[in-house]
Amino acid sequence: MAGFSERLGAVLAQRRRDGLYRHRLTLDSAQGPLVQVDGRQYLNFCSNDYLGLAAHPRVIERFRRAASEYGVGSGASHLVCGHSAPHHALEEALAEFTGRQRALLFSSGYMANTGILTSLLQRGDYVFEDRLNHASLLDGGLHSGARFQRFAHNDVAALQARLTAADGPRLVVVDGVFSMDGDTAPLPELAALCRAEDAWLMVDDAHGFGVLGERGVGSTEAAGLAPDAVPVLMATLGKALGTAGAFVAGSELLIEGLIQQSRNYIYTTALPPAVAAAGLEALALVSEEAWRREHLAGLVARFRRGAAQLGLPLMPSSSAIQPLLVGDAVRAVALSERLRAAGFLIGAIRPPTVPAGTSRLRITLTAAHSDTQVDQLLAQLAALWKAD
Amino acid sequence: MAGFSERLGAVLAQRRRDGLYRHRLTLDSAQGPLVQVDGRQYLNFCSNDYLGLAAHPRVIERFRRAASEYGVGSGASHLVCGHSAPHHALEEALAEFTGRQRALLFSSGYMANTGILTSLLQRGDYVFEDRLNHASLLDGGLHSGARFQRFAHNDVAALQARLTAADGPRLVVVDGVFSMDGDTAPLPELAALCRAEDAWLMVDDAHGFGVLGERGVGSTEAAGLAPDAVPVLMATLGKALGTAGAFVAGSELLIEGLIQQSRNYIYTTALPPAVAAAGLEALALVSEEAWRREHLAGLVARFRRGAAQLGLPLMPSSSAIQPLLVGDAVRAVALSERLRAAGFLIGAIRPPTVPAGTSRLRITLTAAHSDTQVDQLLAQLAALWKAD
Repeated sequence: MAGFSERLGAVLAQRRRDGLYRHRLTLDSAQGPLVQVDGRQYLNFCSNDYLGLAAHPRVIERFRRAASEYGVGSGASHLVCGHSAPHHALEEALAEFTGRQRALLFSSGYMANTGILTSLLQRGDYVFEDRLNHASLLDGGLHSGARFQRFAHNDVAALQARLTAADGPRLVVVDGVFSMDGDTAPLPELAALCRAEDAWLMVDDAHGFGVLGERGVGSTEAAGLAPDAVPVLMATLGKALGTAGAFVAGSELLIEGLIQQSRNYIYTTALPPAVAAAGLEALALVSEEAWRREHLAGLVARFRRGAAQLGLPLMPSSSAIQPLLVGDAVRAVALSERLRAAGFLIGAIRPPTVPAGTSRLRITLTAAHSDTQVDQLLAQLAALWKAD
Repeated sequence: MAGFSERLGAVLAQRRRDGLYRHRLTLDSAQGPLVQVDGRQYLNFCSNDYLGLAAHPRVIERFRRAASEYGVGSGASHLVCGHSAPHHALEEALAEFTGRQRALLFSSGYMANTGILTSLLQRGDYVFEDRLNHASLLDGGLHSGARFQRFAHNDVAALQARLTAADGPRLVVVDGVFSMDGDTAPLPELAALCRAEDAWLMVDDAHGFGVLGERGVGSTEAAGLAPDAVPVLMATLGKALGTAGAFVAGSELLIEGLIQQSRNYIYTTALPPAVAAAGLEALALVSEEAWRREHLAGLVARFRRGAAQLGLPLMPSSSAIQPLLVGDAVRAVALSERLRAAGFLIGAIRPPTVPAGTSRLRITLTAAHSDTQVDQLLAQLAALWKAD
């Protein structure tokens, strides 16, 4: 035998023994935060549709109209003939919104991060990453050929020591908001350090874009950073913008460099034009409906206040991601299952996604939730923790 | 300075000097093979929408309806809560259509290939790839940690020598139809060799799926291979199916192994449910409208007959990809521009996408083209080659 099946079988058996086996739920319908699974309705607290724009009538209508105009798929890569007017308009709008010279669409955040890192970096360079960075940033850094170093989470002093010791082009890479913890990177300190050390700073703002900052530009706006403090800004369109795909924004040189060199950009089919058109509408709504951000911030404050009063194990997050630390993987799954039995959809996040011993319930709040729904969740969590 | 800008500037200047700089066109509208760029209409011969399904009314309608039902984006990864009924139904339909136990959706072909290879393979394994394999297969193999060896294009004897010399789990990876040449892999010979050598065969059928074989299952059906001859079958949904994304089909163990282990599967937002719903409709049309495959095969034969009579530099392809070998990159671009001036959109493919000295015009035919349009193209090519 080639040996692959035996190995796969052994891996799966081990996962089962360790309580780390993953199961998929199939959503039979989704109407904002109300979803149906196996004929039963649940309140969804694990979607990253932070502003509730995925089901916004204007976003849906723009998506539908573009499909009628352009067909469903783009049919080719951007450089062959898959780049159409909605892609172009979205890139221009994202550049303007983020205050950058140019922006470039990728098919997913994973593609964007690995594409940026493997084409910007080369052997002899250094890349420094927060150890809690998203998998795609770690993979891109590892595969880039550059000298790859992780530093302790949000530890600017540790980073400084590493930066000072390195000689050559240096890129520092962090998440703006960490996806499984919900806390934010110390961007002002990181930007000052990079400026002093003459290094470039890249921020993956997947979970901050659209949500943070007065205008919704994200973590960098909230941190008061000028565009040149973050030469490489990346964010996704499948979270607060409610569609799919991702973009990188930066200088003319950076973007042209990616167009010419990034294999992840060049050798892949462009997103459907309808996805880009919907992104354009969602971006307009980020500005027009600022109440969504305010309402979400209110829900986050309400949840944290309530959870603190109940003595729930909150993590230090002020974002829409509000994990409750459980520790043991089997217990996290059991809690998730009991929440589900009570009508709440909340995922248990376990190793290897998070470090061993830090399994958690990852609760996400969105502008589509109501105060009442958050109160219902708190009441349920209180009952569970008391019984546990 | 960090040094990145200077290096990017130098790379771009070199590309310009070498005649290898890439420019994007923006399609302002697309109605089947008729597209508009800068206010002028062109006949598009560079789309991979081989069956013309991207603009099929039923595919568009299914896409539009799913957006109304599910919203635009999926809002989460498959393992958190982004897996919805259309994704599930499409996976089941793809498994049945390809005769495999299971199928799994990925956000793009690039994500699928790098995801499969980096999670299936490990240090100590061997991966053998045709040197003309798609970039994503080569990148996935290189980053997998396995011992990575390329073999000469379609050279089964060369592969056999390498396989025999290797000891350990061995994976052979080929494109079913090579994307820039249009020729097909010698699948019966490769399958026999893998069986004899106890290696696994993986086929990326991005350009064969939906097009080749009596039922449109692709290169493996055309080669008469049983499912167990190709344990890892991958194909994309953004070409003949006219939508976006990709899938892998194989055994229950393979698919569960990917769900549990593939970072490219786990850490990315699921495709919009509407994209999956449209894929399901397109897959039904692959079976119901077999005339599309037949008409396309007729156009390919017509084009090759005509081009041969005109003495055009055809390459040995019987697929929908019909490149004309030019050689020099600057001349290929000049020919592409002259075709554009005459109303035909055909891309010049240059290094590093293809080996130096083999720049070409990559012509793709689709079921949306008519006999007359192919004749018009031939007449224009004849005039160009005569004048050149």
